[in-house]
Amino acid sequence: MESTSFDPSLPGVRLLQDWLRQGRVLRIELNDGQCLEGSLRWQDPEFLALNRSDSDQPVLLSRRAIALIRTLG
Amino acid sequence: MESTSFDPSLPGVRLLQDWLRQGRVLRIELNDGQCLEGSLRWQDPEFLALNRSDSDQPVLLSRRAIALIRTLG
Amino acid sequence: MESTSFDPSLPGVRLLQDWLRQGRVLRIELNDGQCLEGSLRWQDPEFLALNRSDSDQPVLLSRRAIALIRTLG
Amino acid sequence: MESTSFDPSLPGVRLLQDWLRQGRVLRIELNDGQCLEGSLRWQDPEFLALNRSDSDQPVLLSRRAIALIRTLG
Amino acid sequence: MESTSFDPSLPGVRLLQDWLRQGRVLRIELNDGQCLEGSLRWQDPEFLALNRSDSDQPVLLSRRAIALIRTLG
Amino acid sequence: MESTSFDPSLPGVRLLQDWLRQGRVLRIELNDGQCLEGSLRWQDPEFLALNRSDSDQPVLLSRRAIALIRTLG
Repeated sequence: MESTSFDPSLPGVRLLQDWLRQGRVLRIELNDGQCLEGSLRWQDPEFLALNRSDSDQPVLLSRRAIALIRTLG
Repeated sequence: MESTSFDPSLPGVRLLQDWLRQGRVLRIELNDGQCLEGSLRWQDPEFLALNRSDSDQPVLLSRRAIALIRTLG
Repeated sequence: MESTSFDPSLPGVRLLQDWLRQGRVLRIELNDGQCLEGSLRWQDPEFLALNRSDSDQPVLLSRRAIALIRTLG
Repeated sequence: MESTSFDPSLPGVRLLQDWLRQGRVLRIELNDGQCLEGSLRWQDPEFLALNRSDSDQPVLLSRRAIALIRTLG
Repeated sequence: MESTSFDPSLPGVRLLQDWLRQGRVLRIELNDGQCLEGSLRWQDPEFLALNRSDSDQPVLLSRRAIALIRTLG
Repeated sequence: MESTSFDPSLPGVRLLQDWLRQGRVLRIELNDGQCLEGSLRWQDPEFLALNRSDSDQPVLLSRRAIALIRTLG
């Protein structure tokens, strides 16, 4: 991890928290072009955890690998 | 995130704020060659938020994934 | 290494420790699209160490190279 | 941005400033193989700003995306 | 370099030192898919130095470029 | 730049300085597979400066873009 400092007052962190509370489905594009869709369970300085439809365990996405985040619908 | 220190006096941050205030349409190239166009809603140390024509929610672009930023028109 | 600060209270680090204790088989996708499967032996700020079926020595995965982590089964 | 510390006494920063003052045309190769040519308007810890022939606004190149910098001519 | 702090008590650094002392041949995969094999001469926060069969000078591998490290045999 | 701290006592920095003093021709592989050859003029925390045969100005290589460094001959 690059840093454990993670400022919850930053606009990006706050917007992700809003989308989490609203249960929004996110479409996340990774640097390699791969896309994932899902709602956000939590975020920390290293990962976003997305809910999976096929498991009660989330999938961890490295923030470092993320290029774009959009809401769907 | 790599750092929450974000110096608003830096030329790059200031120029992006100018472009935001002027409502300029930006063309942003990502490291994978993908291009996005839109006006800037806000910036923070981790993301640029671009306005979308098809949603009131912005798209978040990781600063880390950005190669080039140009104004259009 | 980018940092030796590694906060064991972070949700991502804690979830990986849970998966380690449960002996879960993980499927880890790297930035280049390659996938590895195995259970976690330990984690530190630079690497995840996965158990190998063909050696008593683990394989070291750079955290920096990791895009996604999922549990299998 | 990774850091706002930017040491103007470093050889690389100084050489770029020399090239700026001399109005040298630079050829900059990005990590994805793309090349840009132009003279330097300014540098900061996150970006190099190159002059454009088709606009009074510079193009911003992320330092992170830069692989090589050469002078032309 | 991102940091000169390099904690020799970390499991990953210690395991690499063990492999060095044991003279293990390592197979190292880089982010671009390239593989190198060789025994470790030393490590520092920026590089691993691998012994070469065709030179008394080591080859330097950037830690940043490393995806996976495995022992052979 | 990620850091201006650059420890000249590190083995990698010292070995590069040895190769510089010896005028060794280096073969440097970048993350995108591109190779450059040349002798080292200087190093700083952000760049290696290689001598060019066709110019008195060096070429700047971002340390971040470097995967491997070998001596030739």
